Amino acid sequence: MIVIREATAHDRGAVWEIFHAVVAGGDTYVFDPATPRDEAIAYWFQADARTYVAEHDGRVVGTYFLKPNRPGLGGHVANAAFMVSPSARGLGVGRAMGEHALDEARRLGYRAMQFNFVVSTNTAAVRLWERLGFAVVGTLPGAFRHSSLGFVDAYVMFRTL
Amino acid sequence: MIVIREATAHDRGAVWEIFHAVVAGGDTYVFDPATPRDEAIAYWFQADARTYVAEHDGRVVGTYFLKPNRPGLGGHVANAAFMVSPSARGLGVGRAMGEHALDEARRLGYRAMQFNFVVSTNTAAVRLWERLGFAVVGTLPGAFRHSSLGFVDAYVMFRTL
Repeated sequence: MIVIREATAHDRGAVWEIFHAVVAGGDTYVFDPATPRDEAIAYWFQADARTYVAEHDGRVVGTYFLKPNRPGLGGHVANAAFMVSPSARGLGVGRAMGEHALDEARRLGYRAMQFNFVVSTNTAAVRLWERLGFAVVGTLPGAFRHSSLGFVDAYVMFRTL
Repeated sequence: MIVIREATAHDRGAVWEIFHAVVAGGDTYVFDPATPRDEAIAYWFQADARTYVAEHDGRVVGTYFLKPNRPGLGGHVANAAFMVSPSARGLGVGRAMGEHALDEARRLGYRAMQFNFVVSTNTAAVRLWERLGFAVVGTLPGAFRHSSLGFVDAYVMFRTL
């Protein structure tokens, strides 16, 4: 049973644990594996973002945020970022958060959603976003320094709402 | 005669005048034409950016900044943004700043440069970046709300260094 709700200050510890575990691999997110807690929390709870958590059987196992991808005349396109605890993979948490984010973005009046940096070798993520209607609209050559593969491409993914 | 140098706090007034004049058109940059001075200056002089100005005959007529496009494992790709005073168009200030930015990025050890949001109808900019070796690597459908044309595409442009 997955429940998704807006995050509160009480969720910061759980969000930090997820963030830290996800970036540790150096294979899916740009953040340095040594990113300190205060920087991670400041990024994930930034002022113009709405931050959510996903609970599975009452435990926070995923988190995402939703915000305008650009200010002003680009503010009709949403951006979102997602993390799932490595201990909760395969439970459908990412997919549930993705669908939730699309609903929230529509409700908030966004016209589209864009991901700026999907690591091309993170095939689970690429496939998930394609299943949820996103397309690769751009390829950034060698833009990600993968912990074991070296420089690999990153994708820009996009879908209208 | 164009001279490009790092900006100082004394240049903020000139940078603000250029910023304000450029965004007024609502046709090339995402910033709301009503962006207040403090927000503009905070953006243009952000902590992780190096900010430069271009002087023509001793007057500041252009400005750009250079920064990592992503943190951590994406930090080897530079990002830059450029503005030229409408009163100084056609003097080669944009091109001079572009070449300067590429040299600076190489000197600082970046491997590539990426522009995240070049308005597709801003053909002068698209052509300039293509002449300087950039290619369109992504198209963001309707991502810019142009003041007179409505929703138009924006490009992601990229070049290695």
